[in-house]
Amino acid sequence: LPLSEFDLIAKHFAPMAAPGGLGLLDDAAILALPRGAELVISKDMLVETVHFLPDDLPGVIAAKALRVNLSDLAAKGAKPLGFMLGLAKPKTLGDDWLAAFAAALKDDAETYGCPLYGGDTVSTEGPLTVSITVFGAVPRGRIVRRLATEAGDHLYVTGCIGDSALGVTMRYHPDAPWIAKLSAEHRKWLADAYLLPWPRNNAAALIQRHARAAMDISDGFAGDLTKMIQGAGLGATVELAQVPLSPAVLAAVALDPALFETALTGGDDYEVLMAVPPENASATESDFAALSLRLTRIGVAGLKGAAVRFLKADRSEQHFAKMSFRHF
Amino acid sequence: LPLSEFDLIAKHFAPMAAPGGLGLLDDAAILALPRGAELVISKDMLVETVHFLPDDLPGVIAAKALRVNLSDLAAKGAKPLGFMLGLAKPKTLGDDWLAAFAAALKDDAETYGCPLYGGDTVSTEGPLTVSITVFGAVPRGRIVRRLATEAGDHLYVTGCIGDSALGVTMRYHPDAPWIAKLSAEHRKWLADAYLLPWPRNNAAALIQRHARAAMDISDGFAGDLTKMIQGAGLGATVELAQVPLSPAVLAAVALDPALFETALTGGDDYEVLMAVPPENASATESDFAALSLRLTRIGVAGLKGAAVRFLKADRSEQHFAKMSFRHF
Repeated sequence: LPLSEFDLIAKHFAPMAAPGGLGLLDDAAILALPRGAELVISKDMLVETVHFLPDDLPGVIAAKALRVNLSDLAAKGAKPLGFMLGLAKPKTLGDDWLAAFAAALKDDAETYGCPLYGGDTVSTEGPLTVSITVFGAVPRGRIVRRLATEAGDHLYVTGCIGDSALGVTMRYHPDAPWIAKLSAEHRKWLADAYLLPWPRNNAAALIQRHARAAMDISDGFAGDLTKMIQGAGLGATVELAQVPLSPAVLAAVALDPALFETALTGGDDYEVLMAVPPENASATESDFAALSLRLTRIGVAGLKGAAVRFLKADRSEQHFAKMSFRHF
Repeated sequence: LPLSEFDLIAKHFAPMAAPGGLGLLDDAAILALPRGAELVISKDMLVETVHFLPDDLPGVIAAKALRVNLSDLAAKGAKPLGFMLGLAKPKTLGDDWLAAFAAALKDDAETYGCPLYGGDTVSTEGPLTVSITVFGAVPRGRIVRRLATEAGDHLYVTGCIGDSALGVTMRYHPDAPWIAKLSAEHRKWLADAYLLPWPRNNAAALIQRHARAAMDISDGFAGDLTKMIQGAGLGATVELAQVPLSPAVLAAVALDPALFETALTGGDDYEVLMAVPPENASATESDFAALSLRLTRIGVAGLKGAAVRFLKADRSEQHFAKMSFRHF
């Protein structure tokens, strides 16, 4: 006998419920905002075959669904408060699937300090669809906006770019010649990067303190950078040789140079791109270093109306066939 | 050429964006909470064929998706602040469909004072899925909970029960003999009730002032009342003869008495069920009357551990084969 929605909530979701959030069995939840804070809200929806693959494990899907939302909070400099879960579930996914999904979600809810406030679970005859709305807090008036870069700002990126893009390429084109030539460790690194992002919430306080503008990179480094800079009406110069790449991506690109473009435009990085005023640059670098958080300066924002240019080491311009991956 | 997600947002969704909400093109939104207020959040997800039918018009689907969420706020005594929209859209639905969807959503956003803060639009190979998270405000500590009824509380319901349940029955069983015998006006009344609910947000302030507990009726009057009362550990006596029915439902029940059970258990009413302390009863009734809002006393909450009993006019107990409609 399938569980009723009430029983399902009590069994699987109550263990990760926020204290004081009305306990999941009400029509709504209450969320308390810290004193002097402003509420930051983000919503990312994940659909099977579009954002994850049918054979991905339930725990991986759950964690990814929450983490891509947490990544948006990190980019805004916000601290997680909690989330609402919308789950449209095919009837073929039974109680074991749900138990694994919920267990992983609970782990991440604890890790990131982001408990469940409520939500809705419904049946679908279509693909599994996970719709999470996440809540965070920033000091009032201190959210880091996407479209606030100014000319002369230094452009930084957290972590490394392109691991996930090569990981998903491996899933879709498993017979590509470069894959077999890569070491097993590098293959696993790339595959894992696609499965599960590591949002940069541990850098959120520094982003909030130092960045003038920021966004998380979800649709590809080149395209997202262009959106952030052009959206502010500016140009930029990006030094492609500076873009941080993992040993796995470097090894793959050495085997097949076309993968460089894939890495820079492929999406699902969930790193944060920041525009930092020049006077904050050295403090930014030392604060990230003090926390052992990787941060790389990759360019500078140019003047109003200028172009966004991606420069190779020989100062010639690189043009990408496709700037970003569109989930839409 | 299909619109990019950016263009789509600018064209269809920007016109209903909340001022000060970052303007939809950021990773996240900012929501300001009125002074002294507490944030109320609710999320209802609607899936084609489960919550609406494939030939429903885009404007009807949009309005229903927002209104079922607004109904949750009404039941909590909360005033709408805004919403986040998650839309998983089959590629077969083009720009005209989206324009109609957005236009209806904008109308309701204005009518209910509930602007758009942000969201996510994604592609799906499955059924259209709309996931809305709605935000509201109540004075701090004054949310009306679902599971707070006390013994002796009067039980009230807004509006009428069962119109939508008979409306959807007409859709699924168009050849049922009673339908042809009903007047055209009554048929339209029932069909419209299923298509588009009218959430009781205009009663929210009175609910907040007078009710000890409340919930909106989405899964059937009998089942939802039982959930609310049993969830508080109580029993109740409900006078079935008092349950408010529209002329259309009365006419249908006269043609086919089995429809009475359908009306009371069929769901999608989006009326509010309230438990009111006896000392508030007369003020509640006169305040609703002053605003010309229909309110009917349908029973009383009984003692701890007692049963929830539905009594017919002859004082015999009515047992329902199925207490509620499960969307899940």
